[in-house]
Amino acid sequence: MNQLTITRNDGVATVVISNPPANILTIDLINEVNTFVLSLKDDRDTKVVIFKSSNELFFLAHLDLNVINGTPEGQAACIEFSHMINNLKAMKQLSIAIVDGVARGGGDEFVMACDLSYATENAVFAQPELNVNIPTGGQGAVQYARRMGKSKALQALLTGADFTAKQAESLNIITQFVPKAELDAFLDQLFLVTGNLEVRDIVMYKEIIAASIKDEGAGAELELRYFLERAKEERTQAIFAAFLKHGGQTEREATDFQGLFADTAAELEG
Amino acid sequence: MNQLTITRNDGVATVVISNPPANILTIDLINEVNTFVLSLKDDRDTKVVIFKSSNELFFLAHLDLNVINGTPEGQAACIEFSHMINNLKAMKQLSIAIVDGVARGGGDEFVMACDLSYATENAVFAQPELNVNIPTGGQGAVQYARRMGKSKALQALLTGADFTAKQAESLNIITQFVPKAELDAFLDQLFLVTGNLEVRDIVMYKEIIAASIKDEGAGAELELRYFLERAKEERTQAIFAAFLKHGGQTEREATDFQGLFADTAAELEG
Amino acid sequence: MNQLTITRNDGVATVVISNPPANILTIDLINEVNTFVLSLKDDRDTKVVIFKSSNELFFLAHLDLNVINGTPEGQAACIEFSHMINNLKAMKQLSIAIVDGVARGGGDEFVMACDLSYATENAVFAQPELNVNIPTGGQGAVQYARRMGKSKALQALLTGADFTAKQAESLNIITQFVPKAELDAFLDQLFLVTGNLEVRDIVMYKEIIAASIKDEGAGAELELRYFLERAKEERTQAIFAAFLKHGGQTEREATDFQGLFADTAAELEG
Repeated sequence: MNQLTITRNDGVATVVISNPPANILTIDLINEVNTFVLSLKDDRDTKVVIFKSSNELFFLAHLDLNVINGTPEGQAACIEFSHMINNLKAMKQLSIAIVDGVARGGGDEFVMACDLSYATENAVFAQPELNVNIPTGGQGAVQYARRMGKSKALQALLTGADFTAKQAESLNIITQFVPKAELDAFLDQLFLVTGNLEVRDIVMYKEIIAASIKDEGAGAELELRYFLERAKEERTQAIFAAFLKHGGQTEREATDFQGLFADTAAELEG
Repeated sequence: MNQLTITRNDGVATVVISNPPANILTIDLINEVNTFVLSLKDDRDTKVVIFKSSNELFFLAHLDLNVINGTPEGQAACIEFSHMINNLKAMKQLSIAIVDGVARGGGDEFVMACDLSYATENAVFAQPELNVNIPTGGQGAVQYARRMGKSKALQALLTGADFTAKQAESLNIITQFVPKAELDAFLDQLFLVTGNLEVRDIVMYKEIIAASIKDEGAGAELELRYFLERAKEERTQAIFAAFLKHGGQTEREATDFQGLFADTAAELEG
Repeated sequence: MNQLTITRNDGVATVVISNPPANILTIDLINEVNTFVLSLKDDRDTKVVIFKSSNELFFLAHLDLNVINGTPEGQAACIEFSHMINNLKAMKQLSIAIVDGVARGGGDEFVMACDLSYATENAVFAQPELNVNIPTGGQGAVQYARRMGKSKALQALLTGADFTAKQAESLNIITQFVPKAELDAFLDQLFLVTGNLEVRDIVMYKEIIAASIKDEGAGAELELRYFLERAKEERTQAIFAAFLKHGGQTEREATDFQGLFADTAAELEG
């Protein structure tokens, strides 16, 4: 990989994107992302994938304009870009975009294709495609419509306006604004909590969420089926026993919920 | 009823939940809720049902872990819990949860199964099930997905994080945050307004809302049908006459809308 | 036209509504709106339609109560009102409501039938129909359900409560609150940006948004088809060439995005 630097630590793969000068989504970069993402298909050791940028100004710019040229090769590259978005959306692992710079066009679409996204005061989000006579091509309009409703989405797409991270959180473009000074501590805390997850946990909730958004009743059925299956696991009963021993189902749930889980975990490890 | 104390006053049934020490959703409590809710099926005198807790710390804790054990009896109890959620959602009356304490897991799901929910600075909401190796089982993940969108829902479900009432309002978990000091006055005002409703009014709007969320066009058709039917009622024409007599369709609608309705009501009662 | 004053300037039609004393949606006013909106069907010169009121207190009040009377003529008028809402929603042009007064009932429904809506500190929004024994009849309940979710929608419809512009923005009733003192500058900026649009651009994004809200996958397919078609246009390639000449795909996208587009536009005009 030339534009992606990947390091792995304790179930978390960190992918640093570097494609100077502006982290443009060239076909080479797209191919690298697709190769990496598809390589995770049967990987159960990697649970979380973080996408970051080494560029001071850009998280990720847009699709390379040189391939949006209407030639057969160009159209094929555009379709690869579209596959990249779908590949990201289909990941079994928890994908997280950490945005500390510009993410317009394809960059914004990349962010929305990730499960979670956290952005700082340096982040900028927009879908300004109409300024250059094209619509979004990586589900930017699709996601805007579904996340902010038709009126706010239409305004954003027709004007191409920039959004800050705070605005993007409010409009559901990203999960949460996190000030840069607090980002490391925030992520440490997040990995502490998600570090115990298995890929199957992540897949389960992604499936229930996707089903529920399409059809409330179908989501409820799927959730109940998972619930009844998981109730039967020995691991569940062991955790319950430790939890109840340390004050589960008593007032401690209201007064010291974190301590109760810490004692439960210690009991299970002991 | 042992865990529910029910009082009725002027069309409003107030249900106080008490299942010490932590208002756990034991199978007994679930059965009492189901019995009560199903008893309202043909009741047209009860228009509003308020759910409160007498416990200082808890609104309602989660489903009793002792029944999540994979045995046939346990699974049957889990399914009764699931029926309770669906029974609450299917109520014809207006159901309102008043949350002044902890509502995690099944407690949070109970709140989201009610039509309206108001919570104070003492409230806590969460779906922390994954900490004990199970998913939500009472449509917690379903509701999170539909209320806050897939990214914020996935974050909330994977981390199990606590939400305050203010956060819960912003994420559509509850209807509105109301400071405890203002709660009584807020509810008095709400009952003043909803006191004139009939069960059929509540059912009508619940039906239109449910249809509209599934399919915009079907919702619009249903709404128009109700509208044209209601236009024909004598009661409608009597209200219109009083409303027009006191300044309906004049500037008074802009300068004194409440007074206009007060005079309309007085005219009709006179 | 007696109640509508229409002026046209550079692709923008401004429609001023005047139906004293309270801008009631009488059948005459409804017929004028329908005639005007339907006249735009094949008009490609008019790109944006602004709806304003000349009334100091009202943007637009509700449907005339005198036609909600259950007679055949009355029901026909109600259905014309319902057609008006659907005609507004089906417009190819970008429709914008500027709300500087009361918009309850049919007025609120008119606003939500427009693509974009901006409202000042003088605006009031509500669906108080249940106070007069009828439901909403112009998709007010439908839109509330889809924009604010079932719980907040039910509360709003059962109480008929007034919303300010700030609240209406937060609940997705309108696109954005704009202080009256800033309104002219805000609209000048909006028309500057949207002035370069063609009707086909507006139609394209409306179609993608509508498809995406119904079905995410169908929206994504439609978006990609438009994207690949637009890539082939000579105009697209000319804009790309000018954009790249002036610093597109370099750091200038992060440091001076507006200047980059200004230079691109000057290059194309030159």
